[in-house]
Amino acid sequence: MVAPGRSVAERDCGHAGLFVMHRRQFTGHLAAALAGGALLPRQPFAGSLRAPARLPDLSGERLNGHIKALAEFGANPQGGVSRVAYSDWDKAGRAHVTQLMRLANLEVSVDIAGNIWGRRAGTDPNLKPLVFGSHIDSVPNGGNYDGTVGSLSSIEVAHALAEQNIRTRHPIEVVIWANEEGGLFGSRAVSGQLKADELSKVSWSGKTIAQGMDFLGGYSFHMDNAARKRGDIAAYIELHIEQGGTLERDKVDIGVVQGIVGIHRWDVTITGVQNHAGTTPMDQRHDAMLSGARFVEMVNRVVRAEPGRQVGTVGRLEAFPGAPNVIPGKVVCILEMRDLDAAKIARLHTMIMAEALKIGQMNGTSFSFEKVHEDVAAMSDSGIRRVIDAAAKELKLSTREMPSGAGHDAQSMAMLGPMGMIFIPSIGGISHSPKEFSKPEDIERGARVLMGAVLAADKIA
Amino acid sequence: MVAPGRSVAERDCGHAGLFVMHRRQFTGHLAAALAGGALLPRQPFAGSLRAPARLPDLSGERLNGHIKALAEFGANPQGGVSRVAYSDWDKAGRAHVTQLMRLANLEVSVDIAGNIWGRRAGTDPNLKPLVFGSHIDSVPNGGNYDGTVGSLSSIEVAHALAEQNIRTRHPIEVVIWANEEGGLFGSRAVSGQLKADELSKVSWSGKTIAQGMDFLGGYSFHMDNAARKRGDIAAYIELHIEQGGTLERDKVDIGVVQGIVGIHRWDVTITGVQNHAGTTPMDQRHDAMLSGARFVEMVNRVVRAEPGRQVGTVGRLEAFPGAPNVIPGKVVCILEMRDLDAAKIARLHTMIMAEALKIGQMNGTSFSFEKVHEDVAAMSDSGIRRVIDAAAKELKLSTREMPSGAGHDAQSMAMLGPMGMIFIPSIGGISHSPKEFSKPEDIERGARVLMGAVLAADKIA
Repeated sequence: MVAPGRSVAERDCGHAGLFVMHRRQFTGHLAAALAGGALLPRQPFAGSLRAPARLPDLSGERLNGHIKALAEFGANPQGGVSRVAYSDWDKAGRAHVTQLMRLANLEVSVDIAGNIWGRRAGTDPNLKPLVFGSHIDSVPNGGNYDGTVGSLSSIEVAHALAEQNIRTRHPIEVVIWANEEGGLFGSRAVSGQLKADELSKVSWSGKTIAQGMDFLGGYSFHMDNAARKRGDIAAYIELHIEQGGTLERDKVDIGVVQGIVGIHRWDVTITGVQNHAGTTPMDQRHDAMLSGARFVEMVNRVVRAEPGRQVGTVGRLEAFPGAPNVIPGKVVCILEMRDLDAAKIARLHTMIMAEALKIGQMNGTSFSFEKVHEDVAAMSDSGIRRVIDAAAKELKLSTREMPSGAGHDAQSMAMLGPMGMIFIPSIGGISHSPKEFSKPEDIERGARVLMGAVLAADKIA
Repeated sequence: MVAPGRSVAERDCGHAGLFVMHRRQFTGHLAAALAGGALLPRQPFAGSLRAPARLPDLSGERLNGHIKALAEFGANPQGGVSRVAYSDWDKAGRAHVTQLMRLANLEVSVDIAGNIWGRRAGTDPNLKPLVFGSHIDSVPNGGNYDGTVGSLSSIEVAHALAEQNIRTRHPIEVVIWANEEGGLFGSRAVSGQLKADELSKVSWSGKTIAQGMDFLGGYSFHMDNAARKRGDIAAYIELHIEQGGTLERDKVDIGVVQGIVGIHRWDVTITGVQNHAGTTPMDQRHDAMLSGARFVEMVNRVVRAEPGRQVGTVGRLEAFPGAPNVIPGKVVCILEMRDLDAAKIARLHTMIMAEALKIGQMNGTSFSFEKVHEDVAAMSDSGIRRVIDAAAKELKLSTREMPSGAGHDAQSMAMLGPMGMIFIPSIGGISHSPKEFSKPEDIERGARVLMGAVLAADKIA
């Protein structure tokens, strides 16, 4: 079932006055993308990555052409892209992607949160849809692979199936989420997790979330209409770049995601005694900066003391008053911890608080912790993990089960039904940067695994 | 010899239009100060601190009354004072102090940097002046003792000598420096160290240094006229609060200052690799924050590893980009080191750089140091130290030789002749704060030591 919404074409007409980008500029980019071969008829891939006879084929060349073409929408002179959600370039990119979905024989609509849905009916009208997709919005000064790889691979899978006249039992729905980078706004509207008071938050585009949803053709004032219920989908599968460096380092082709880690954040305030840095002897100081430094070092030590993929980070730290000649009387920093296992985070955090107490006692400073953020972990479905793993093995690809340390729209969809994610290597583990890169052959591999997983899920779901 | 300048009264008339404070408000404060007993005839101090018969007497009560009265000029509701240099309250406080100097039978003038000089001729016209004094400007939200104790004690010494008809061989000059807290501007103008390009710097008052000097009755456009030459003074002695907590902690009455420490500052930049805090495993990080933390801890350890009064402080630290979910790729902090011995600082800094190199190697980050500030140490004169120590011993006070960790106008005057400083205890070692406090009896002790040292220096200098 497709969420309520009208077609993009219809909405674009209706919102012509809101479309701030120069129409000529946008049309030029779309024409360039088309001329660049992005929409040419499929040609067989010349490389060694042919699918086995029993899996339908898809075109890695067409897929990588589409990635190159979409990179024009919001391209930065220094490389990479700034296609932040609800910006003119986001809207233009979404219009472009809508055309690709139509060429893939998908019936396109936009829901009230601005998500684009491309649907094709299945052979069994009683089955719920198999949903797959990702996002095409970026962080400011971001890269061309985060979200884009999964979005365009999903469209390529639908395109290849249509070309080969392969009908699935389930309806298929390719989804291009809105504003993933700002905080999973599109997918959380669909999972029913988005709260009304978040609509007034200002996004990177300068628009509020509500204005942004309207700008993309949604109806923010009826937001709750986007929500689906648990059981409304047969499964959700998302292909994504790893954004870390472990697959590349260990020469593994495909990551089978165990789940998306929980994210816990605390404001940590360290209170000492502000004093004159020239007249206060070293043994009479209650230096909040020294305690802050010992805290950062201790967090790293405690988090690394046991095996596992848990991470702990202090990404921000500020000392007050912050003058070179004043011993800081206060330090404020943010501790972030992530893991699939909330109990493990709670245990490590208890250890960190106990160690912080000792650090405070060393120089007469005190620590206080305030929890300011918690995203619960979202586990993937074991059945979906199995079909992903099997699809990769059929392609002679190596796999590894791993957590996703980053948040993804898949965690919203895990609220509605079985969820799974496929990771491909990120070169150097670099993401949210113009240097973000994944190899074309790895992208093609990921798309083939996605197709295999969708077709296998179609048989068993 | 007094530096060129006209009397404060004359200048005040000439600048009536510039005197921005409400005249009624100022007059009211002055009247309150007078009514509060500040200028009443001297009464014998009732406590146990009588000077021995061979030293002239002074009034601790009158002195502490003057301190209380001056506290009205720029008093803050939360306690303490904001009498920043060149502000209306600074000007009003200086006008008040000028009256106290006249009542002490001093001949008052203002030099072109705004310093107030109160002179009385000696019996030997061939001798250079004995100079003593301090400052009455404060930091924003400062206390009532830093500078004020030495300024009003110096006036009290002159007042007591006049009352008792004691003539010195040398001329005496009580000086109230201008803008000590902003960077020793008044005293550096006199020592010839102030550079012309500093005159356009904006002070806490909002005025440039040049505007501020004019506002106080100086002629900033002839600044070099304020300068004296080496040998132009017989000696300079300054009484000041310790601003640290060692005298109080160890129950020592009087600090005999060995010298004013050199201050060395470096910008330290730590470069790592910015990356995603969720997807980058702990063992693949090049976390500049972790290296920064290890650096702060190491600086503390290295500086404390050997005996002495050297101090090392990191008062400011900033991580970039400074987001909770991003491993910092860069940290910038400021390292400050102080000691009387520049060779010791150089040696410790070499050790710190070597340790920083090792810290960087632990996680693939790099350190760079840029020296951004250096004040050379100013040693006190051994003869002046001896007369201070002897004066204290004569009053049955305990003494300790110690460095001054803070900068003082005395370091400028050390350029011109023999310099010495007297410290009295700061309760809790707190300074630059409304909580700054020194006991009235300690202030009186300090003033008596100052008087004894001046009279002893008059005999030998």
